[in-house]
Amino acid sequence: MTSQFPATDDVILGPGDDAAVVSAPDGRTVATTDVLVEGRHFRREWSSARDVGHRAVAQNFADVAAMGARPTGLLIGFAAPPDLPVDWADGFSLGVRDECAVAGGAVVGGDMVGSDTLTIAITALGDLQGRAPVRRDGARPGDVVAYTGHLGLSAAGLALLRGGIDGPAACLDEHRRPSPPYAEGVAAARMGATAMLDVSDGLAQDLGHLCRAGGVLIDLDSRALVPEPALVEGVRALGVPPERAEQAARDLMVAGGEDHALVAAFDPATALPDHWHRIGKVRSADQEQVKNSVNPVTVDGCAPPRGGWDHFRQG
Amino acid sequence: MTSQFPATDDVILGPGDDAAVVSAPDGRTVATTDVLVEGRHFRREWSSARDVGHRAVAQNFADVAAMGARPTGLLIGFAAPPDLPVDWADGFSLGVRDECAVAGGAVVGGDMVGSDTLTIAITALGDLQGRAPVRRDGARPGDVVAYTGHLGLSAAGLALLRGGIDGPAACLDEHRRPSPPYAEGVAAARMGATAMLDVSDGLAQDLGHLCRAGGVLIDLDSRALVPEPALVEGVRALGVPPERAEQAARDLMVAGGEDHALVAAFDPATALPDHWHRIGKVRSADQEQVKNSVNPVTVDGCAPPRGGWDHFRQG
Repeated sequence: MTSQFPATDDVILGPGDDAAVVSAPDGRTVATTDVLVEGRHFRREWSSARDVGHRAVAQNFADVAAMGARPTGLLIGFAAPPDLPVDWADGFSLGVRDECAVAGGAVVGGDMVGSDTLTIAITALGDLQGRAPVRRDGARPGDVVAYTGHLGLSAAGLALLRGGIDGPAACLDEHRRPSPPYAEGVAAARMGATAMLDVSDGLAQDLGHLCRAGGVLIDLDSRALVPEPALVEGVRALGVPPERAEQAARDLMVAGGEDHALVAAFDPATALPDHWHRIGKVRSADQEQVKNSVNPVTVDGCAPPRGGWDHFRQG
Repeated sequence: MTSQFPATDDVILGPGDDAAVVSAPDGRTVATTDVLVEGRHFRREWSSARDVGHRAVAQNFADVAAMGARPTGLLIGFAAPPDLPVDWADGFSLGVRDECAVAGGAVVGGDMVGSDTLTIAITALGDLQGRAPVRRDGARPGDVVAYTGHLGLSAAGLALLRGGIDGPAACLDEHRRPSPPYAEGVAAARMGATAMLDVSDGLAQDLGHLCRAGGVLIDLDSRALVPEPALVEGVRALGVPPERAEQAARDLMVAGGEDHALVAAFDPATALPDHWHRIGKVRSADQEQVKNSVNPVTVDGCAPPRGGWDHFRQG
């Protein structure tokens, strides 16, 4: 952690004192925390130190963006075994620095301690710029569901790594260094998104949170779920026969997580912001129906694929 | 972590969404993070789960107080082995809840993950209420040095636990559940403290940070370092003969850490706030002198005790 972290205009007092001071221009600060544990959230043999730095920052600032906020500050708790190579810590710092530059936030504080288990705890702060936070519970029946960013690439990348397959770089890279569309969170909030979250567990599963929070159902339109060419290529590299590749890729878009795409609901009268893809619709439901539903999210009216892996087992 | 955490007026949006929203009334937020690792920062055999919850919160909100800020929000990263008893997590949550109530802050978010090593990462937020942060680098020659809170009790408590001695409860309790004087940080800032920090590594060592940051020297007055009766009692329980107990206790005040007392510098014309004890003076120095000094902090003009443990080895 020897590299210098550059400051931004949001840093009123940076690292080195008992605490940092970060700007919160509208009198509120957005705050979120995530813990990454080696062997569970990343593997040193699959991801470089720099990749892990990128990813730790990305998944936290994606949560900030999912509230419709602009990233401001970041704090890093770093617990490492004494034999961790200095190069690893330096590489991690570089990844953190570079992803902060992409997101627009600055490292303002941290704590380095010893531990048998390499563990990274990140807290990210953000600025709502005077807007209301875009919560999970605001989707209304009739709203349009749309996403921006990548879906499925990270899951395909993980499957490729697990299989020891040197597949399409776009898949491997997205798993190692997800690229959340930070600025699109603010854009969606400005356009009046009624609910928003980032896709970390998988599109269907995360939209399920949105359904349960808002007491609604969501139906996705499979024709609108158009896989990126790189995703189809990745699925092919995993051994899925050509005739099933398109469907398998679509299933990964619905079931795969960790790309940190943003998904939101909008009033149907709203012109979607650029880069957002309409993929479904919010439907009304009574609370009991949502609560008792195994899956409040459907694709063309049917249960979504569970993990998208059936194709690969057969393939 | 099943217990409910009560909200405060600072919680605009609590746990459950992608991120929380916390008030930052003056357009700035104070932020600090600490990581506690089992076996290094706490031991399950020496501290109850509830103690660890108290301590994790206390050491973070003490950092907030040391900036002259009022505690507002707290985020908890909790990485635990799968076999951690549910009772432990529940006890920890109760300690967190109770210490938050003492400090005046609220739990606003968190993340629970699996790990082979029980690890707790806390981020604390605070509100400067319109004041400038009290930094480490503001002490000026001629300033009075004063502290508030406990000094030495925690170190004595740790030594007692290490020795398997069931010593004075005041020592054991302060080690298990430090009691930082949160409100005194704000009081000191209001009185115009020129520099402040919380004592985590030991009074002499931490004041050394203040010297190096401000380019000054500090001399403590041993006559002003009056040990609490419980500390003298603890030292006696550790086997120090009566005739050396007072001196040993004083040495622990200077060398012992983790009580999270607050220590600050004040203009000599300032009437100290209640509960603050004058213990020394800031002296001028040239930067080179401070930089090259092994210890910029002296007691009666001499080097401070290194660890205060000499007494116990002999005793």
